[in-house]
Amino acid sequence: MTQRGIYLHDIPLDVAWARLTGALKQAGLWQPLPGEVVLLDQALGRVTASAVWARISAPHYHASAMDGYAVRAADLAAATDNTPAQLPLGGAGPARYVDTGDALPAWADAVIPVENIQLIAVPGSASPAAIEVRAAVTPWSHVRPMGEDMVATELVLPAHHTLRPVDLGAIAGCGHSSVAVCRRPRVAVIPTGTELVPAGSPVKPGDIFEYNSLVLAAQVEQWGGLADRRSIVPDDFERICAEVAGAASTHDLVLLNAGSSAGSEDFSARVIEHLGTLLVHGVAVRPGHPVILGMVRPQGTLPGAVPSVPVIGVPGFPVSAALTGEIFVQPLLAHWLGRSPEQAPVIEAVITRKVLSPLGDDEYLRVTVGQVGERVVATPLARGAGVISSLVRADGIVLIPRHNEGLNAGDRVAVRLYRPAAEIARTIVAIGSHDLCLDLLAQRLAEQGADRPEGATRLSSANVGSQGGLVALRRGEAHLAGSHLLDPETGEYNLSAIHRYLPDVPVVLISLAGREQGLIVKPGNPLGLRTLADVAKPGVAFVNRQRGAGTRVLLDFEIGKIGLAPAEIRGYEREEFTHLAVAAAVASGMADCALGIAAAAAALGLDFVPLFKERYDLVIPQEYYRAPLLRPLLELLADDGFRREVAAMPGYDTSRMGQVVAEINSQ
Amino acid sequence: MTQRGIYLHDIPLDVAWARLTGALKQAGLWQPLPGEVVLLDQALGRVTASAVWARISAPHYHASAMDGYAVRAADLAAATDNTPAQLPLGGAGPARYVDTGDALPAWADAVIPVENIQLIAVPGSASPAAIEVRAAVTPWSHVRPMGEDMVATELVLPAHHTLRPVDLGAIAGCGHSSVAVCRRPRVAVIPTGTELVPAGSPVKPGDIFEYNSLVLAAQVEQWGGLADRRSIVPDDFERICAEVAGAASTHDLVLLNAGSSAGSEDFSARVIEHLGTLLVHGVAVRPGHPVILGMVRPQGTLPGAVPSVPVIGVPGFPVSAALTGEIFVQPLLAHWLGRSPEQAPVIEAVITRKVLSPLGDDEYLRVTVGQVGERVVATPLARGAGVISSLVRADGIVLIPRHNEGLNAGDRVAVRLYRPAAEIARTIVAIGSHDLCLDLLAQRLAEQGADRPEGATRLSSANVGSQGGLVALRRGEAHLAGSHLLDPETGEYNLSAIHRYLPDVPVVLISLAGREQGLIVKPGNPLGLRTLADVAKPGVAFVNRQRGAGTRVLLDFEIGKIGLAPAEIRGYEREEFTHLAVAAAVASGMADCALGIAAAAAALGLDFVPLFKERYDLVIPQEYYRAPLLRPLLELLADDGFRREVAAMPGYDTSRMGQVVAEINSQ
Repeated sequence: MTQRGIYLHDIPLDVAWARLTGALKQAGLWQPLPGEVVLLDQALGRVTASAVWARISAPHYHASAMDGYAVRAADLAAATDNTPAQLPLGGAGPARYVDTGDALPAWADAVIPVENIQLIAVPGSASPAAIEVRAAVTPWSHVRPMGEDMVATELVLPAHHTLRPVDLGAIAGCGHSSVAVCRRPRVAVIPTGTELVPAGSPVKPGDIFEYNSLVLAAQVEQWGGLADRRSIVPDDFERICAEVAGAASTHDLVLLNAGSSAGSEDFSARVIEHLGTLLVHGVAVRPGHPVILGMVRPQGTLPGAVPSVPVIGVPGFPVSAALTGEIFVQPLLAHWLGRSPEQAPVIEAVITRKVLSPLGDDEYLRVTVGQVGERVVATPLARGAGVISSLVRADGIVLIPRHNEGLNAGDRVAVRLYRPAAEIARTIVAIGSHDLCLDLLAQRLAEQGADRPEGATRLSSANVGSQGGLVALRRGEAHLAGSHLLDPETGEYNLSAIHRYLPDVPVVLISLAGREQGLIVKPGNPLGLRTLADVAKPGVAFVNRQRGAGTRVLLDFEIGKIGLAPAEIRGYEREEFTHLAVAAAVASGMADCALGIAAAAAALGLDFVPLFKERYDLVIPQEYYRAPLLRPLLELLADDGFRREVAAMPGYDTSRMGQVVAEINSQ
Repeated sequence: MTQRGIYLHDIPLDVAWARLTGALKQAGLWQPLPGEVVLLDQALGRVTASAVWARISAPHYHASAMDGYAVRAADLAAATDNTPAQLPLGGAGPARYVDTGDALPAWADAVIPVENIQLIAVPGSASPAAIEVRAAVTPWSHVRPMGEDMVATELVLPAHHTLRPVDLGAIAGCGHSSVAVCRRPRVAVIPTGTELVPAGSPVKPGDIFEYNSLVLAAQVEQWGGLADRRSIVPDDFERICAEVAGAASTHDLVLLNAGSSAGSEDFSARVIEHLGTLLVHGVAVRPGHPVILGMVRPQGTLPGAVPSVPVIGVPGFPVSAALTGEIFVQPLLAHWLGRSPEQAPVIEAVITRKVLSPLGDDEYLRVTVGQVGERVVATPLARGAGVISSLVRADGIVLIPRHNEGLNAGDRVAVRLYRPAAEIARTIVAIGSHDLCLDLLAQRLAEQGADRPEGATRLSSANVGSQGGLVALRRGEAHLAGSHLLDPETGEYNLSAIHRYLPDVPVVLISLAGREQGLIVKPGNPLGLRTLADVAKPGVAFVNRQRGAGTRVLLDFEIGKIGLAPAEIRGYEREEFTHLAVAAAVASGMADCALGIAAAAAALGLDFVPLFKERYDLVIPQEYYRAPLLRPLLELLADDGFRREVAAMPGYDTSRMGQVVAEINSQ
């Protein structure tokens, strides 16, 4: 075993942050970056470095507010309907045509709109000679007086304001062509690791796609910084030192990715210590623990100099990396840009499951959020730090503070949303058995978004098995549940389970598709498995679905029929949560076979031995079945194009798609 | 008078929009733009053109989830604390060191974390020979099985999804290096008008800074399009035709700014008719009326061809132009990008004033919004279409539908917010008399933002005069009011007015500053005005403050003392709402003198004849005086730097700044 670091501590988040900002203050770096002047057409989204004061009034002259005639109000004091006044037209008055925006002649003090006058013709001339007016006018009417919009020297925008399109107009309108904005922080993102390969490369086992730098660089850009994504550096102390010192000489911040733990190849802490000061190694946040904070001396600085460039050692697991960005990089960039950190919209929700969280750690729990009936419900997602898809699927984050041991189902929590609340309101929450049709439905609903002014309907599905879905419906956590629960007594699907799990809930049971269940086996079926009994043969490794899954119920029913005991099946206790997951287990060699659907086998290039036919239904409480939210989904079930797409998948039968199988408990 | 168009109608907004989308449908253009493939590091903020499916599982092999030792679970079945198992280290097992992320050897099925084993040394060797384990392990523990994150062929992201940083990571993580995204719509922005000059140019009366193209181009960029801002084209039918036809041949949309009304130089409608089809000229929205919608043939197309490029004629007034962008351009770009139009957060508020709105027009009313006590209040801003500063100051927009004649004070309205709701919550609403100190306070509060994790406190001030401010406090529409109301009976400031206007409201009266009031006169004081009596001299034009302004009360009191009647002062009835506005009136030559403060005269380079001293106070209801929201503002009043800044302004006395003058009606 090789050398291991010794610095991994659990420092509370606020203490870690205070150490970093303290070091920045000492180095004179805890303040907005100095300003730079940019042309207005380059200034969108930038942050003003100083207040903008009007250089010239707007308008900078008395301007006509209408197309009409400039006049002196005094000349028309006696004009009435019965005693109209006539004013000859002329450059020096008493009347002259002006377009909207034209300067009022010096002799004039009002404008009469063109629709309120009569033109008086000169006999023998094409152009009119005078206007006739039948009412007096107030001085300065239909005039935009100088400074109506902005008065020279007036405050137009404060410092530290993020510039929007209309702001650019106002700055130009009061006489400027450029604006002083805070310099964008320059951030180097350095990926390290001998095992890393660029995205899209061919891979062999052990190779890891390097994409944390992609995520970190995009975060930096999104938060107003300039990201510089460096090439991958192998695990080599000297090379990493050189890269960090070099980056520090041209950047305001260095993000050093991975190597931040205490493993044999984790050099980050030693590199930072070598180049400057290690402030923090290990922060009590979850996911994210092995965060490193330090200050380094740029290349070419004398060894005795005060370290002047902050470095953040970012953990390697992708969820930890992205959250480290949110927790440390975002507020630092906001401060340097002189603006308040962006505050995500917060929604109050009810958490659907018990969550244990270690005392002493601030945990950032990813959740999906849905509005189900009157309640907003938050459902925890996978907590593994390696599962980036959980961040993609997350609608928001719940912070479980470190003095807290976790949450109980039903607790009210504040969710920091990753999506606009309006998107949450148009999300259909499906919890239950997984079927590929649900992915297709989600996709088709998303495509319809551009045609609906209110935006696309989202379908968010959590895969917890058929029984889990019915339980979620009973708890009011979902709008619908996919289910294929065979009743061993009756041979019917779903009806008895609905009676058992949802005794008081009026629901509509709709057929989604008929599917074939069978053995998912390796390509060419090398073990020659033909029947369910074959899974118990010596040397055959099985992988199972979790308790409560329809496929598991089917398996138990069918092995019971042939007198096979669970203990006779090697791998019966190894559980996966989706069809694709069991197929992946077979594809990877972790198992030889699984019970599942044909489409999952086909998706991964596996072979399939059909054994049984079953019905996969949607269980929808009456109150949601009639709701506008579900209409687009129900309409798709009647759509020919969608049916053809499903029927094209191996083992699918769409003959009953969309049919109401039963209305249960209806009042 | 020159030729005028005849097409200006009032077409309801929904009809106008339907005509445009109908024409786009006919041309096959009412659909997302075709996709293009971009590298992932260029894809932030782009919109997926098609669904993204996993190409490779993630992980694509069974990966160690910890730094530790790969083992076979079966080898440790009997291990306990009392009967530890020893496993020799070796490349082919039964134990081998693995770093986090390493591939599990084919012979292994579990990982034991490094902290759970003992290393067994070989006598005479530096490297250990075996590990000792004191507990059995479950198969697959501390292993991230292949596909744990994403399974090959699985749906990762739907089409029409706007890519966030973590999405880029997920796409890379499942084997892609690029992604298909909708092409960004190309939008030409053509400013027209002989009177236009580029921002920052020297100007003479009648010249107008061209900045609508800056605002429109920035809007296009913000909404995901590619803006191409063209040079200013003078009012010349042929040149505008050539520019539009040329732009149409290389862009998806042309925005033709100004010339959209029916004035003598308004060519837009005729240009569009000449090049294709005029769909709409005049939409019943306010501000914004003269919007033009049409379809044109690109350059080089035969005259008989179907017009294939949409053109929007955007009105010239800046507020109308910006709102035309929001109403027409934003939803069109969103549709082309395949995404739902961004939906601004909506907040319910109480409108503070009666607003009349013409029947038949959809009116977009700009408002400021504040949370005052338990209520969210929306205060209408200036409604002129020329006042871009009203859009800059707006916190949101209230739509008054066309079947509605307006709003009554106290009506509940839905405000579409331009700022995050959190920013509204930290806004101090000041309504009352204007003083330059309020601008300075706003500026200093904004600068403090970077040091407060919760963000800067905003100070939003509406200038309605001292009396107006007290009325606003009584109605619960503001947190504080600036006031300098002289009681002619007592010579005291503000006390009697507070007793009159706020008989039941406990308030704290705080001194902000002492100020000099006097005559604001032209540079060099050409009329030699020395006393207040001089304003009634023949040939002297005065400009007044509005009824209820403290300066107006002072004027009336002082002219009463010297026996001068309002009718004797020429211009007494011409009212402006701020010190700077009366100063601007003097600077522009609209008046010879005004009563006002020294700082306003100095700001515009005018001369000042000091006449009176007065006290400018802040009136703060007790309940807000103690509230955390106001603390940063009150602290600034005690800040030496801020006091010095105010004292440096001409005519200001800060000796009593921040002192409590009186607590009134306190319980």
